[in-house]
Amino acid sequence: MPSYTAPLRDMRFVYHELIDGDSLQELPAYAEATPDTVDAVLEEAGKLCRDVLQPLNRGGDEEGCTYENGVVRTPAGFKEAYAAFVEGGWPSLAADPDYGGQGLPHLLNTLVEELICSANLSFGTYPGLTHGAYRALHAHASQELKDRYLPKLAEGTWTGTMCLTEPHCGTDLGLVRTKAETNDDGSYAISGTKIYISCGEHDLAENIVHLVLARLPGAPAGTKGISLFVVPKFLPNEDGTPGVRNGVSCGGIEHKMGLNASATCVMNFEGATGWLVGESNKGMRQMFTMMNLARLAVGIQGIGLSEASYQGAVQYAHDRKQGRGLNGPRYPDRKADPIVVHPDVRRMLLTMRAYTEGMRALGAWVAREADIADAHPDADRRQQGDDLVALMTPVVKALFTDLGYDVTNLGVQIHGGSGYVRETGMEQFVRDCRIAQIYEGANGIQGLDLVGRKMPAHTGRSLRRFFHPVANFLAEHQDNKELAPFVQPLSKGFGRLQTVTGWLAQKGLSDPEEAGAAATDYLRLIGLVALGYMWARTAQVALAHTGDDGDGFYAAKLATARFFMQKLLPQTGALVSQIMSGKDALMDVPESAFALSA
Amino acid sequence: MPSYTAPLRDMRFVYHELIDGDSLQELPAYAEATPDTVDAVLEEAGKLCRDVLQPLNRGGDEEGCTYENGVVRTPAGFKEAYAAFVEGGWPSLAADPDYGGQGLPHLLNTLVEELICSANLSFGTYPGLTHGAYRALHAHASQELKDRYLPKLAEGTWTGTMCLTEPHCGTDLGLVRTKAETNDDGSYAISGTKIYISCGEHDLAENIVHLVLARLPGAPAGTKGISLFVVPKFLPNEDGTPGVRNGVSCGGIEHKMGLNASATCVMNFEGATGWLVGESNKGMRQMFTMMNLARLAVGIQGIGLSEASYQGAVQYAHDRKQGRGLNGPRYPDRKADPIVVHPDVRRMLLTMRAYTEGMRALGAWVAREADIADAHPDADRRQQGDDLVALMTPVVKALFTDLGYDVTNLGVQIHGGSGYVRETGMEQFVRDCRIAQIYEGANGIQGLDLVGRKMPAHTGRSLRRFFHPVANFLAEHQDNKELAPFVQPLSKGFGRLQTVTGWLAQKGLSDPEEAGAAATDYLRLIGLVALGYMWARTAQVALAHTGDDGDGFYAAKLATARFFMQKLLPQTGALVSQIMSGKDALMDVPESAFALSA
Repeated sequence: MPSYTAPLRDMRFVYHELIDGDSLQELPAYAEATPDTVDAVLEEAGKLCRDVLQPLNRGGDEEGCTYENGVVRTPAGFKEAYAAFVEGGWPSLAADPDYGGQGLPHLLNTLVEELICSANLSFGTYPGLTHGAYRALHAHASQELKDRYLPKLAEGTWTGTMCLTEPHCGTDLGLVRTKAETNDDGSYAISGTKIYISCGEHDLAENIVHLVLARLPGAPAGTKGISLFVVPKFLPNEDGTPGVRNGVSCGGIEHKMGLNASATCVMNFEGATGWLVGESNKGMRQMFTMMNLARLAVGIQGIGLSEASYQGAVQYAHDRKQGRGLNGPRYPDRKADPIVVHPDVRRMLLTMRAYTEGMRALGAWVAREADIADAHPDADRRQQGDDLVALMTPVVKALFTDLGYDVTNLGVQIHGGSGYVRETGMEQFVRDCRIAQIYEGANGIQGLDLVGRKMPAHTGRSLRRFFHPVANFLAEHQDNKELAPFVQPLSKGFGRLQTVTGWLAQKGLSDPEEAGAAATDYLRLIGLVALGYMWARTAQVALAHTGDDGDGFYAAKLATARFFMQKLLPQTGALVSQIMSGKDALMDVPESAFALSA
Repeated sequence: MPSYTAPLRDMRFVYHELIDGDSLQELPAYAEATPDTVDAVLEEAGKLCRDVLQPLNRGGDEEGCTYENGVVRTPAGFKEAYAAFVEGGWPSLAADPDYGGQGLPHLLNTLVEELICSANLSFGTYPGLTHGAYRALHAHASQELKDRYLPKLAEGTWTGTMCLTEPHCGTDLGLVRTKAETNDDGSYAISGTKIYISCGEHDLAENIVHLVLARLPGAPAGTKGISLFVVPKFLPNEDGTPGVRNGVSCGGIEHKMGLNASATCVMNFEGATGWLVGESNKGMRQMFTMMNLARLAVGIQGIGLSEASYQGAVQYAHDRKQGRGLNGPRYPDRKADPIVVHPDVRRMLLTMRAYTEGMRALGAWVAREADIADAHPDADRRQQGDDLVALMTPVVKALFTDLGYDVTNLGVQIHGGSGYVRETGMEQFVRDCRIAQIYEGANGIQGLDLVGRKMPAHTGRSLRRFFHPVANFLAEHQDNKELAPFVQPLSKGFGRLQTVTGWLAQKGLSDPEEAGAAATDYLRLIGLVALGYMWARTAQVALAHTGDDGDGFYAAKLATARFFMQKLLPQTGALVSQIMSGKDALMDVPESAFALSA
């Protein structure tokens, strides 16, 4: 198993130097997010991840969760680790002080989440879903429900789930069949079966709070007839302790490709008592509060696994001695050179690094805007933040998980045969990452969300929240010769994005299938340009530090930025051709092209 | 687990219509390869795969091989299946009639291997390595060794292995430490430890024949001091039956990401008796006979898994009903449309199909040339075949396994959450495929082989064996309007390939690191152009059948060819930019870019 060191230097760079996270202090809500506090939190989180969570990662994968008679047990050590996690106050980091939270920025929480994902992704799903449930209730529930549930979720003694999928419906939630019937006391009786419920049942917390989509009697068909209910495993007593067992039980867990220490449950609701969250028939909108947060969090999983895999790969590239440098031995006194001397190994390492650090920067920028959307005193500025977050949510979710999968696979490839052996731990990152491309909306759905909803919304306003800063950056630095190796490729990629956007806006308006045919490629295109923008900004900051670069941190940033521009950003060219050839190659095909046997 | 139907229609198309496999009948060695025989063999192989091998695939993955006190047991059913496989005469299909073989073309054997890989890749490794050992002994061993081992390997009652890797060396076999000491009777005593030995120990066959790389006393350092030995598990008696146990034993098996029913063994040689194969100190060259065959076979694994995954995916895309077509319901009388109506699902399915069928065609062309290289009466024509096979071996190995990995991942993605669950069988294809990118020379090594050896060899003669037919095809059809949608994109891709080849030939000559920096991208570039060439030829054949296309087979070919040209071949553009930006972004980077902690 590769050792893991929290990438604190890069996180501090991103937070303090690149995206000006410190400006959040100026917002009353985040006055406590001083640089010292931020750095201290990251450092403590890094220790927890290194010392407590990461050592359980391999064993958790091998042992997995076990199911017996409705009871789910997490692997050895998880209970103790979760207790330490709660004891350390980590669940409450970004929660509202009114409910026992520490009120620190999402930006900081996002970085902490990345650390957790690097150390032990399976573990991270339990607090991750809890935070999502917390946010949905915080946004939509009655004061009574908030008072009852939020403090428990913020402290982490109770965990949360989101119960959407049913056997016959996942993407298409309009088909949900789970029913809610009215009880006399204002509560509801929930009945139905939900599947693929992450953390639906486990032994880490004293209670589990399910957020469940169901239909009220007489509700309209489709998504307009879905309501959101809170259904606890144990009905809370008046004093807030868990009381009698509710009519919800786990019918089994899935055996999966990976993420084995995160229980994926079949949940049976048999007249379980639940309470309506917010208005009836608005469940989809309310669930999207949770879902959008979850989508950003899933994107962060891609970064976390990339970082962990990169650390293992770069270590191995130094340790493994095979062959000689192509232009002659680098270490003639040894029998072989370390494989890090080989151009193709460097190509793989730099690809891993350029994507990982680029994603970290982009994710942080989006998280900062989420904080502004939540807490800025100026409504216009809040709207701006909200627009950028809305636009970038599908990009962060799909791009980061797709790239995370590529990066973790490169980590295996650099290891050769030993990467394929479970003992090394490298292939686990691949298996764990694979689900991230699927859950919280498969990545194809993210593309549709981007081109079908986010792009056209408010006549392109969200898109402009991204286009304007890029255009401004390019204009500002167009004559900067030092920055030209970064500005010019970005300018080319951005020009391609503008061309395709114009084409797509026109085509997609009259023919949604044209937008659908372009969706995945368009998401990749805007994602690459966004990473290019972050790398160009990174280069700008790094160039100002060539004089005070004792450990070569900024030199490494410049080298990685250059690699990104020369070796990764050119993909934008191919994407333009693919998109602009249109939908016919997909839609104008005979039935025989999808015949069931050849 | 998805059901599996052998793609016989497409195989017959490729064999008889596309690459003129029937012309092999004109070679005396392959006079028996009549169209009827070929079709009958494929049909019988298809039945064996469907009825015997595929039903064991999921269980084999779950159970895996087990190790106890030096004994390795294959999963339930494998022994009986292997007995049926031997009984059916499958191991001898392409073996020399002088040693009990059927003498049928490699081309046919390659297609049969693809079927086996689709049905049960783990199972296929046992006969696959046996055939490799057979070929190496056939090419290099003394008559006495041939007479002793070849009939047993051809009949499959004995299986083979290749023992190359040691704990400290895989790619760099010059570091091999295993020793061979001279015995009085002309045999040798072999001592050392080999790791990652596929099928090194198992319970399927009565004897196992190890081909082992080792050093003779006083041998030169590096690869020039390595010799090849045959080391049987049981020393053969005079009558050919297995006799006393030799000093070779299995010290354990690896626990891997996948390919669980194929035993990956640590093999300990403790003064084991072996016999020299061919000349001393020529072991590397001899091993490459086996290795090159193995590399082509590994490429075929990529096709087999792609086909299996595609079949599962297209079935699911019809069965799964979610949402509605983007331009309105296709089946308004149902609650939802099947997901095959969605452009993005079609993009994934057509990508799978275009790669799978394109690889099948390209692999078959290369296999046909291998038959010509072996058996054509004209030495020049043999050389031509050999040149093309030499050039394409790294391409087939690396491109097909990389694309196979992409395709099997698309199969999971189309399934959504159910693809991540082991029960469905889709994720197994991904895990099984992952090793194919690594073993028999990691794909980065294939790129180096292509640009460092194959491209410059004989001043580009091998390359011309590929360039000339493509150029001729383009010249012949340049005015064919019907074919223009295929000829024009191919021409563009081929032009790019020529440009880059010229640039690289010049750069790489003076600076091997430049070639190394371009290697992986160049392999992908030539591979895409080669697939484009096969798809253009496919379109040419298909266009001649628009009048007799009852089942829409040719219409599907044309649609898939068009998809390839519009949606996949444009990648060549990005590759040109990436390659021609040169090595500096990889080699001219500070040490801090690969520092061990950030």
